[in-house]
Amino acid sequence: MATQNIYDDPGIFENYGRLPRSKDGLSAAPEWASLQALLPDLKGLRVVDLGCGYGWFCRFAREQGAEHVLGLDVSERMLARAKDMTSDPAIAYRRTDLETLDLGAETFDFAYSSLALHYIANLPGLLAELHRALVPGLKFVFSVEHPIVTAPIPAGWSVGPDGRKTWPIDNYQNEGSRRTNWLAEGVIKQHRTLGTFLNLLIRAGFTIAHVEEWAPSEEQIAANPEWAEERERPMFLLMSVQR
Amino acid sequence: MATQNIYDDPGIFENYGRLPRSKDGLSAAPEWASLQALLPDLKGLRVVDLGCGYGWFCRFAREQGAEHVLGLDVSERMLARAKDMTSDPAIAYRRTDLETLDLGAETFDFAYSSLALHYIANLPGLLAELHRALVPGLKFVFSVEHPIVTAPIPAGWSVGPDGRKTWPIDNYQNEGSRRTNWLAEGVIKQHRTLGTFLNLLIRAGFTIAHVEEWAPSEEQIAANPEWAEERERPMFLLMSVQR
Repeated sequence: MATQNIYDDPGIFENYGRLPRSKDGLSAAPEWASLQALLPDLKGLRVVDLGCGYGWFCRFAREQGAEHVLGLDVSERMLARAKDMTSDPAIAYRRTDLETLDLGAETFDFAYSSLALHYIANLPGLLAELHRALVPGLKFVFSVEHPIVTAPIPAGWSVGPDGRKTWPIDNYQNEGSRRTNWLAEGVIKQHRTLGTFLNLLIRAGFTIAHVEEWAPSEEQIAANPEWAEERERPMFLLMSVQR
Repeated sequence: MATQNIYDDPGIFENYGRLPRSKDGLSAAPEWASLQALLPDLKGLRVVDLGCGYGWFCRFAREQGAEHVLGLDVSERMLARAKDMTSDPAIAYRRTDLETLDLGAETFDFAYSSLALHYIANLPGLLAELHRALVPGLKFVFSVEHPIVTAPIPAGWSVGPDGRKTWPIDNYQNEGSRRTNWLAEGVIKQHRTLGTFLNLLIRAGFTIAHVEEWAPSEEQIAANPEWAEERERPMFLLMSVQR
């Protein structure tokens, strides 16, 4: 199965381009500081970014002294925009369907993926290939939508008659496709339990180093009061694992 | 802080005694088969059970050939009942507050805990002591109430006007005490995120081996149709970790 290539749809591409994290880069993503805290020192590392989008992380990695960065994405439009934004010869972009990831003979010292893996049905295949291509002892840091967010059908906040705001869960154990209307109608995500994420990583040979169910900090909420609801349930799942 | 010793309250002790898992033992607990699948071969092992209750697991471990089993519980009444149920000299029971676990000079080849750790505030202290007393390379298998169950204030199912049954979550990031009315009013549990459970274990020196967000199987639901709702959200968190 090929990944649904939503970002080559002109409407979606335009909507995606309006997101703060697309326009303004890493620091516009509220979870970036937490993700950054999980990164190793990138100096001298060969880095691969799975689902690189506009290439913000690829350029960041080079600023941090990475020796070489490979950005992979399924979207031609994303990659064209990423290429427009740099002339650094140590950054390479390559169109790749992560459903059938093949890193060839290349090896990497660090792998990164931001909010891409919850679109991938063949996660076991991706993890096996990544494990093969990562140097032993080295790290893979990634974020996905939290399973609490992807589970419910339909997903959404609920406000009770008493004003209590909750995130109603159902279908948690019902793994598989979820049809959502984020950026556009009919975008397909893959719901997996947190246990499945962890067990797939462990079975692929990775050691779990840190798991963060991301929520905004008190400081972030003070600066952005509308984020307070994100402490009611975890929004993103951030993980650092070791090859 | 000492553990709230709810089971020495006569009313609670009586209610606890009426639960199928108390009366009829391990196989009356719907998650037992999944927990059992995580156990190592117990033959010849020195085993400790944290929160042993009536001692069902202690007796099971001996049936499986464990060399010696130590059952720990904070409740005198529980331990008295456990002692009544065996005359096996290789099973020892000891009154212990898991908040201040001290295994002395003893070492163990396997540690087990069923639905006890979500009452413990000083989980870091317990894990440090357990890590010290477990032989390197050996396993700790435990179950707790799932963080999705412990988070909401108040916790409970919700049925919408369309009949949709959900488990509304709030306060997920708000870790700490939860006052519940299970078995009796005012029982205090400790809510921790799944990330916190994992990170406390990792920081204590354990390697995560398997994580199961338990739900009944299709076969179990066929036999007990009223359990179907437990597939909407995970009820228990089962984990196997390695010293």
